[in-house]
Amino acid sequence: MPSIFTRIVNGEIPAWKVAENAHCLAFLDINPLAEGHTLVIPKMEVDNLWDLEPELFTELMRFAHQVARALGKVSSATKVGMAVIGLEVPHAHIHLVPINGVNDIDFRKEKLKFSPEEFKAIADRIASAL
Amino acid sequence: MPSIFTRIVNGEIPAWKVAENAHCLAFLDINPLAEGHTLVIPKMEVDNLWDLEPELFTELMRFAHQVARALGKVSSATKVGMAVIGLEVPHAHIHLVPINGVNDIDFRKEKLKFSPEEFKAIADRIASAL
Repeated sequence: MPSIFTRIVNGEIPAWKVAENAHCLAFLDINPLAEGHTLVIPKMEVDNLWDLEPELFTELMRFAHQVARALGKVSSATKVGMAVIGLEVPHAHIHLVPINGVNDIDFRKEKLKFSPEEFKAIADRIASAL
Repeated sequence: MPSIFTRIVNGEIPAWKVAENAHCLAFLDINPLAEGHTLVIPKMEVDNLWDLEPELFTELMRFAHQVARALGKVSSATKVGMAVIGLEVPHAHIHLVPINGVNDIDFRKEKLKFSPEEFKAIADRIASAL
């Protein structure tokens, strides 16, 4: 069965897309730790990020770099943190999370809620800074 | 004043080095969350990881990819997680941490203690898998 992220890539499940190219996709985490919390994924369904071939891994990180810079421009947070855990959804993904403190990337925290209109506005704001 | 990591790069402070090239260095975190917890840094002292120019950022991630794969080979953990927080030491650094659970990258956890001999053996083991 395709992963939930592959279904997003294929357009079977909607997502608030931030950026996309031939191999990579960035979209808002639906259960965000912070406003602007973005997931960056390879379109190819691979469970373990490190199993990506060096060329595709590097391409993914180049793409994530651009998204993180855009997120940093539109966010009022101190920094944009990055986390890869890889034990939730078996499709490699990079969390980009605006943070103000060392412990702000904590997946046990209560997630923020936004309306569809708010999610769309956030995604558009990041995309416009790319 | 140079960062503690620049002092490690310059050999003024010892570290358990795992890998090194012209622009990047990987060494064991002295306060590890898990056995094999490794820091990957650009030798250039930059506070914010995302401020690195795309070329150097990509080179750093290519290097981190190699180190993470080596760490995965020698670790019995489920995955190798990655985290960038950037609010502790003002010199960009990537944490590579062997993890078994979603919450295993938690900087509030009590850190592990190893003897110098143990640190050296861990660093050598990762290096040998590169």
